[in-house]
Amino acid sequence: MAAPVRFLTGITTTGTPHLGNYVGAFRPAVEASRRPGTENFYFLADYHALIKCDEPARVQRSTLEIAACWLAVGLDPERVLFYRQSDIPEIPELTWLLTCVTGKGLLNRAHAYKAAVDKNNAGGLDPDVDVTAGLFMYPVLMAADILMFKAHRIPVGRDQVQHVEMARDIANSFNHLYGDLLVPPEAQIDETVALLPGLDGRKMSKSYDNHIPLFAPREQLRKLIAGIVTDSRAPGEPKEVEGSALFQIYEAFASVEETQRLRQAYADGIAWSEAKQTLFDRIDAEIAPMRERYEALVAEPARIERILKAGAAKARAIATPFMAELRHAVGLRNLGAAASAPKAKAAKAATPAFKQYREADGKHYFKLVDAAGRLLAQSTGFESPQDAGRAVARLKREGLAPGEPQLQLAEGVAADQVAAALRQFAAD
Amino acid sequence: MAAPVRFLTGITTTGTPHLGNYVGAFRPAVEASRRPGTENFYFLADYHALIKCDEPARVQRSTLEIAACWLAVGLDPERVLFYRQSDIPEIPELTWLLTCVTGKGLLNRAHAYKAAVDKNNAGGLDPDVDVTAGLFMYPVLMAADILMFKAHRIPVGRDQVQHVEMARDIANSFNHLYGDLLVPPEAQIDETVALLPGLDGRKMSKSYDNHIPLFAPREQLRKLIAGIVTDSRAPGEPKEVEGSALFQIYEAFASVEETQRLRQAYADGIAWSEAKQTLFDRIDAEIAPMRERYEALVAEPARIERILKAGAAKARAIATPFMAELRHAVGLRNLGAAASAPKAKAAKAATPAFKQYREADGKHYFKLVDAAGRLLAQSTGFESPQDAGRAVARLKREGLAPGEPQLQLAEGVAADQVAAALRQFAAD
Repeated sequence: MAAPVRFLTGITTTGTPHLGNYVGAFRPAVEASRRPGTENFYFLADYHALIKCDEPARVQRSTLEIAACWLAVGLDPERVLFYRQSDIPEIPELTWLLTCVTGKGLLNRAHAYKAAVDKNNAGGLDPDVDVTAGLFMYPVLMAADILMFKAHRIPVGRDQVQHVEMARDIANSFNHLYGDLLVPPEAQIDETVALLPGLDGRKMSKSYDNHIPLFAPREQLRKLIAGIVTDSRAPGEPKEVEGSALFQIYEAFASVEETQRLRQAYADGIAWSEAKQTLFDRIDAEIAPMRERYEALVAEPARIERILKAGAAKARAIATPFMAELRHAVGLRNLGAAASAPKAKAAKAATPAFKQYREADGKHYFKLVDAAGRLLAQSTGFESPQDAGRAVARLKREGLAPGEPQLQLAEGVAADQVAAALRQFAAD
Repeated sequence: MAAPVRFLTGITTTGTPHLGNYVGAFRPAVEASRRPGTENFYFLADYHALIKCDEPARVQRSTLEIAACWLAVGLDPERVLFYRQSDIPEIPELTWLLTCVTGKGLLNRAHAYKAAVDKNNAGGLDPDVDVTAGLFMYPVLMAADILMFKAHRIPVGRDQVQHVEMARDIANSFNHLYGDLLVPPEAQIDETVALLPGLDGRKMSKSYDNHIPLFAPREQLRKLIAGIVTDSRAPGEPKEVEGSALFQIYEAFASVEETQRLRQAYADGIAWSEAKQTLFDRIDAEIAPMRERYEALVAEPARIERILKAGAAKARAIATPFMAELRHAVGLRNLGAAASAPKAKAAKAATPAFKQYREADGKHYFKLVDAAGRLLAQSTGFESPQDAGRAVARLKREGLAPGEPQLQLAEGVAADQVAAALRQFAAD
């Protein structure tokens, strides 16, 4: 049986979910979580929230609301991994490890950062005005979210594809230095997921203030739907489905048959008020049972806290041992266990090395150190670094010559040890 | 009795300590640790090591050697806080919190980063070639090291003063947003600490390859001292102490009287070989007992591991509760405890807020939300954002008017609640 494919989805805890989030993220994610052969990770990205939100009460409230949303729309925390990012201390630790292998140039090219710089440049300001290091480092934190759990596929919108590619690049940099430990992820764009228009016809978004809160009370939902922008055609006049936000929202909730019926009603000249009533009824039919669950959940924050803590325990059962492996790979090790053999795949850790340097006498020297950095041998002096380099190359290629003229063994080191170290270069 | 002044010193675990480190850091720090009225933190900066060293075995070995050095030179782990940075998971977590409040512009100005950029520019390269995000973010990690333990004074060389100032700036940014929680530290430059010259007369530094390992075996120490660059004056010729690396190194180890005697011997024409013997004897007299302890310690890595783990437990007894306070301040909170009153000093957390927005009808609105982000009231529509702003200003200034014409209370909210929220603005 093939190993399950791991999917990972995070939602930043800075707002209250709206219908666009439901259609574009919550609903498809919950459906996906039920597919066999998959393992699904859903997390509340509250460390990410701190990048753009310095209102603690809002972060707290949003965490509660988004957690309640996930559960209300049907996510089964027994079946998936459902956790809060800030309950996993391995995430910021991995962020630091990845920071050290990430080229700054890579981050300079991130769209979100570049957009902020472009805006400042356009305003005649210094490029980094009001840009926090948080915005700049966001792709590294996101890489840690993904790489911590060896997630294979990251369902994202087109605007997030670059960040997943950066996570790939960062994983490859780490693997190149420390061995093949991280799994480079792939972005997965689901073209069938609807992009919901908002009240004014533009994409539904909090930043446009054109959104409908997912669990708005029924009367508020009705009122908001009544506010959807339409054209001024009178009842009886045929109406266009093309460009009709109302129609598109309906389509995202209705079956093919229902959608076909509304299309016909448009052609037949349905009154806008009636079309809005149809939309309201359709949405409310789907949302009402979830809204009830949502309200019950939000009223019991301690219960949600318990669910999140249980999820964190499951997630850490993966993260903690993996982080131990990564720590060992980079050299953050239990000193007492130093004598144990390094893992075969962290090959670089077990390699001796030549180091060239210049002494006060003006001559060029090299030394040979073992995998633990201990001195094995030092060279005689050479007139130029090129001469020293040639001697190193010879030793790597041919090993220790009998009565080796250019190398002095360090105190307590036997010729056998040096010969063994040199054989490792020949074998490379 | 005044609260003790907290000093904090970290050493990056990428190399083997040399005599310059001993004279400039280890020796004065151990002396300082014995001053009454102080609390002293010493840590092995192994997360910092990852910025410049991708050789795991070297990081591991250096951690062992530097830990053994601290203990060999006389640091008493019972009396101070002595720990390894990577044993404190709160450090990378705080690093992320600070990342979100640090302006990227601040980091652009860091000397170490600018030096790398200048070098690339001089070579006609792209400014960020081979610059890692680790180098760029280094000041934020260092700020976390300091702020985690509310350290007041950071003994540093002149080249590190800027980083301590950055930690101050970062602390102030955090405090401005979240309340007065972090202690801005001060750099402390001890002008009396000697800057030791190396074998070639330049500052002793691994990067110049002119250093003497602190615990080099006696014969290697003798050989290295014999290699100190001198001028060519013959025995019997008077010699200059000015510019004599040998003399300066001697001065860093000898008493005033001993130094005076060597000065006289220089004037009297001491032979260089004899001067070197004098220096060797003086250094070896100080170092020999420490070298013995060092060798015993390095041979027992498991014992050092135990000492570091005990130190980490002491450090985390401070870091863990403080981190909990900081997490609460930024909004990473136990949802189940949401009903409890926020701490008085995290003032921002308990403040209601006005939010302005535009509705689909083209009019401008505002709403009033409480500290938890719950809607208290919504305004009637205004023709311009200025009109809405004026109404907000009036409400903040004068509170709720009788029969308030421009505000509709949210469902289930009483006028009293709104009036109480508005009074908080007047009180600010």
